[in-house]
Formats: sequence, structure tokens, C-alpha cells
Amino acid sequence: MSEPIQLVPNNSLLTKTPEEGRQLAVKMARLIIKVTQPDAAVREKLRPVYADDASMLIAIGQTVATEFATIAAANNYWRENK
Amino acid sequence: MSEPIQLVPNNSLLTKTPEEGRQLAVKMARLIIKVTQPDAAVREKLRPVYADDASMLIAIGQTVATEFATIAAANNYWRENK
Amino acid sequence: MSEPIQLVPNNSLLTKTPEEGRQLAVKMARLIIKVTQPDAAVREKLRPVYADDASMLIAIGQTVATEFATIAAANNYWRENK
Amino acid sequence: MSEPIQLVPNNSLLTKTPEEGRQLAVKMARLIIKVTQPDAAVREKLRPVYADDASMLIAIGQTVATEFATIAAANNYWRENK
Amino acid sequence: MSEPIQLVPNNSLLTKTPEEGRQLAVKMARLIIKVTQPDAAVREKLRPVYADDASMLIAIGQTVATEFATIAAANNYWRENK
Amino acid sequence: MSEPIQLVPNNSLLTKTPEEGRQLAVKMARLIIKVTQPDAAVREKLRPVYADDASMLIAIGQTVATEFATIAAANNYWRENK
Repeated sequence: MSEPIQLVPNNSLLTKTPEEGRQLAVKMARLIIKVTQPDAAVREKLRPVYADDASMLIAIGQTVATEFATIAAANNYWRENK
Repeated sequence: MSEPIQLVPNNSLLTKTPEEGRQLAVKMARLIIKVTQPDAAVREKLRPVYADDASMLIAIGQTVATEFATIAAANNYWRENK
Repeated sequence: MSEPIQLVPNNSLLTKTPEEGRQLAVKMARLIIKVTQPDAAVREKLRPVYADDASMLIAIGQTVATEFATIAAANNYWRENK
Repeated sequence: MSEPIQLVPNNSLLTKTPEEGRQLAVKMARLIIKVTQPDAAVREKLRPVYADDASMLIAIGQTVATEFATIAAANNYWRENK
Repeated sequence: MSEPIQLVPNNSLLTKTPEEGRQLAVKMARLIIKVTQPDAAVREKLRPVYADDASMLIAIGQTVATEFATIAAANNYWRENK
Repeated sequence: MSEPIQLVPNNSLLTKTPEEGRQLAVKMARLIIKVTQPDAAVREKLRPVYADDASMLIAIGQTVATEFATIAAANNYWRENK
């Protein structure tokens, strides 16, 4: 039996920088795909399907943008960083 | 006759951690599918359709991201947790 | 002549619980379909089309998630309930 | 020459009730279609295309939900009405 | 060589009225298409493709709704106008 | 081995003007495509696919709109600029 998949790395939305927040958005988006399709072999087979498809690449961008909106709000947009 | 489907587990958006909030987002997204298609046999038949389809996996990610945005706001982004 | 369709049940976004808020989101999403396609016979014919289609079930979930975001904000996420 | 299309009826997002706000969301969504396709004859021809298509009905619901989110926020969710 | 495309007319999200804000949303949505496909001849060829397609008209409405949400928030929903 | 792709140029969401904020939204949307499909040759091949497709151009507009919403909020909508 596999362990349950952790959906939020480090169990926190708070990051030091926008760059790290963006990386977290990408990871969180991928982890939803992982929990919906837990079979690594199937996911590996699907990777070139979306990576070579313009329409799906755009759709992934939409999902990451939505995740990032939440993470950016959680971090008060890293306004103190500047 | 089946019981009415509960759409919000525990009838609350508040969770202890981001991880639990994310799990709630996944559950709430699935429960909308359940209430729209209450027949478990049909849902079981549809599962491999979307789990093996890159485009649908991305779309599920978009829906979970939207649900999570609401749950994260409800919990003030778990800022006190850090 | 048919009566105009009421788009917001009880003419309020405020509900006692998250569960009732979620039910309202589902109803409001359905009422937009009703006002766009007022013919009940056509709607009845379309129901199995989307209920048996994985892609459309996911899209319905996306719409409900967006409606729910508004309702949840209106109710301050039912934070006082806990 | 036709007059320019008014995109926001009454030039205001403020409405007395959620019901009126919802109606405004539907109208604003339709007016974007009108300004993009100003030819009434073409729009008339397209109406049954989307009204009989489950997938497009859902997509219309998504757009109305997004417009309504803005209108509801503008009206502070009509919280004073209750 | 062509000049760089200005993506935000007047370099401001602030408008006097909701109507002007809505027009800005339409323009900003179109300018993204322009910057992605800078060839005017191609864009001209694509115009009837989306203007005659119910599904694409709805998708344009979704994009404008999202742009408008930002512009409306920037203007505090023109609440002072009433 | 290639260097890791920087996802947020200058590691900040803060910009001087709405125009610069909009350019950042476009860049951030493109960088997600880049990190999902790191092979420049494949991306180059996909460019005409979406740039000549009305439906994909609209979808890109949707993604940029979502990224811009976050950037605009981060900058308090550049209200002080006026």
C-alpha cells in the first residue's frame, strides 16, 4: 500500500519569496493530478500528451494561475520583501 | 430512497491545517459530481475516463484550485499556524 | 406565458450554514441554465448528456465552485458558526 | 450606422437586491456577446446552438457566475437587506 | 519594425464610470490577443471564426468578465458614483 | 544541464505601472508553459499552433487575465499613480 499523498508541501502556503510561491503553485497543481491518478506509470504516459499540446499547456497555465492567486494572497503579495 | 448527499463534510470550511483544507477542497469537488450524477455505477464507469485523460485531469485541478481558494480565505490562509 | 424565473432563491445570498450555502450554489448554477434554456423538455433531454459525461461533470463542478466562492464570502465563511 | 452598445445597463453595478444583481450579471454577459457579434441575425442563428448544447449551457453558467461575483462584491453582498 | 503594443490604454485601471471600465476590459482582452498574434492579417482572418462560433463567444465573455473583476475592484466598484 | 527556469522575473509582483504589471502577467503565463515544456524546439513548433487558433488565443487571454488579477491586487491597483 502506498502512503497518502501530501497535497500541500510543508503543510503551509507561506513562502519567503514570490519565486518560491510560484514553485509551490506548480507543485500543488501537480499533486492534484497525482492524487486523481495515483498510478505513476499512467501519469508518465500522459506527460508527453499535455507537454506537446498547445491547448493543454495553456490550461495548465490557467490552473497554476489560480493556485498562485491563493498563495500570493496568503503571503500578502510579499509586499514587505521589496 | 437514498439519503440526501452532504455537500460540505462536517458542515464547515474551517480546518486545522492547509493540508486538511486541500483535502476538503478535493472532497467538495467530488461531492458536486456525486450530486449531479448520483448513480454510483455510472460514476465508477466514468472514473477511468477522466483519470486517463490529460485534459480532464487538468480540468479537475482547476476546479480544486477554485474550491481551495475559498477554503483558504475562510481560514485566513492558516497564517497563525506558522 | 410563463412567470419570470427567480434566479436567487429567497432573494438572498445569506444562509445559516456552509451546507445550505453549497446547496444554494448548486441551485443558482442550475437556474442560469433554466433561464438560458427555458424549455423544460429540452433541459430534460440534456440532463443525461452531461450527467454521463466526465468532462461536463467537471465543468459543472467548476461553475458551482465559482458560485460558492461568492456565497461563502457573503456569509463571511460562516466563521461564527464554529 | 448603429449606436454604440451600452455594456453596463444604467451605468452602475449597484442593485437593490441579489435577484436584480443576478439579472444584471446575465445581461452584462449577453452584452459582451452582442458587442463581439453585433449582427443580430447571426446572434439569432447562434441562440439555439448554445441553448441546446449541454456543454455551452454550462459555460454560460460559468461566465454569469464570474460576472455575478463582481456585482455581489460591489453591493457588499446585500448584507444590509436581511 | 513595429512599435511595442501598449497593453493597458492610458496606463491606468481607473475609469470614471462602470461603462468605461467595461470598455477597458474589452480592450485589454483584445490587446492580449494582439500581442500574442501581432500579425493584423491573421487576426482579421480569425475574427469571423470566433464571432460566428457560439462556444468562442462565450469564452470571450468569460475572459472579459475576469478582466472586469480586476478593473471594478481597482475602482472600488464606482460606489461613489451613485 | 540547463539552469532552473526563473518563474517570477525579478522575484517580485510589484511594478511601477499597470502597463508593466500587464507585461509581467504575460511573462509569468509564458514561463509556466516553459517550465512544463522545457524543450525550446517543441515550444517553437507549438507557437503557430496557438497563435493561429482563435480558441487558444482566447484561452491565453483568460490565463493572462487571471495572472493580472493577482499582480494588480499586489500593487493595490496602482491607485496612487493617478
